[in-house]
Amino acid sequence: MAEISIKTNERNELLDITDLVATQIPASLESGVCFIFCDHTTAGLTVNENADPDVKHDLLKKLASLCPEAEPYYMHEEGNSAAHLKASLMGFSLTLPVRHGRLVLGTWQGIYLCEFDGPRRRKINVMWQRAENGISG
Amino acid sequence: MAEISIKTNERNELLDITDLVATQIPASLESGVCFIFCDHTTAGLTVNENADPDVKHDLLKKLASLCPEAEPYYMHEEGNSAAHLKASLMGFSLTLPVRHGRLVLGTWQGIYLCEFDGPRRRKINVMWQRAENGISG
Amino acid sequence: MAEISIKTNERNELLDITDLVATQIPASLESGVCFIFCDHTTAGLTVNENADPDVKHDLLKKLASLCPEAEPYYMHEEGNSAAHLKASLMGFSLTLPVRHGRLVLGTWQGIYLCEFDGPRRRKINVMWQRAENGISG
Repeated sequence: MAEISIKTNERNELLDITDLVATQIPASLESGVCFIFCDHTTAGLTVNENADPDVKHDLLKKLASLCPEAEPYYMHEEGNSAAHLKASLMGFSLTLPVRHGRLVLGTWQGIYLCEFDGPRRRKINVMWQRAENGISG
Repeated sequence: MAEISIKTNERNELLDITDLVATQIPASLESGVCFIFCDHTTAGLTVNENADPDVKHDLLKKLASLCPEAEPYYMHEEGNSAAHLKASLMGFSLTLPVRHGRLVLGTWQGIYLCEFDGPRRRKINVMWQRAENGISG
Repeated sequence: MAEISIKTNERNELLDITDLVATQIPASLESGVCFIFCDHTTAGLTVNENADPDVKHDLLKKLASLCPEAEPYYMHEEGNSAAHLKASLMGFSLTLPVRHGRLVLGTWQGIYLCEFDGPRRRKINVMWQRAENGISG
């Protein structure tokens, strides 16, 4: 198991961690699965477009509009309940295919750490396993 | 690793891919895990009811109301930012139990490809592995 | 594969199942992955804070405000469409790291069964596998 440490820079931020995850995969892994897990409760993981940065902007804006920082019914005194929910909406674990030692992502896909209560130092666990069905299915 | 190719028919659509995934599992897999991964950024994967089709209708309607196509603050010029967020809300990877060569789903569960920017041709990766804890726990 | 049976008590409830999952992991599993899967369509799984119970309160309140029980366009006659969507938003499968026979969770993380249409008896599947990358990465 590898631990990746990531420094975030904003309160809300989508950080492309594709390369950080990819370097954990051994070139010798012909066909397998990579598991990543986010160690936190106000940051999550997702996959999304890594071409136009406006997509990240739009995702964060819409999430902020669905889950504003303050609600009259919020009781959690730290004031970051919106961040807790946004992290659960994105999720904490991803399972990614590996072939010939490389992550098999779609053309426009990147892996994102979703920071909702930064800036902080965050930790991601990366594991991998051989898959038993081969490359040709 | 197997690749499943799926033709979607609507802009927003929940397509039941349970049988397409199930046929990738070998009958000889006594106890295992099936991994599916969606290769896109405007389509996702989920599990939900496969009995009453009104559930699909209601899910799509509510998602459309939470994430309408247009928002004054959207900057992504392709105009499909809502689809990007809806895909992240559903998620891109699922991990499913297998027993005696069959997916172990709940009575009412089906596996859905969630199309949010169709119609298109979509691709899903399917992998599986033996589990090390046996059938009886 | 182990099945965990859980009795929920409320219509909407986040139930901490961390210990129930943890007891399925053998002490001999030096480095591995634990897979949990929720067998239902109106209950899901997530990770979130297990310290201040107000976080659970705030998550449930916000989900209820995003997805109220009734919408004029809902067609599903059982009247639990909101529960179906909330379950999909949380997700049905989680992949968790294991080290030295224990779940490797963050300091504030607990695993939650998310009940959205209770009270009911719910079932979770737990599996595990050895990881091929060792403890030191």
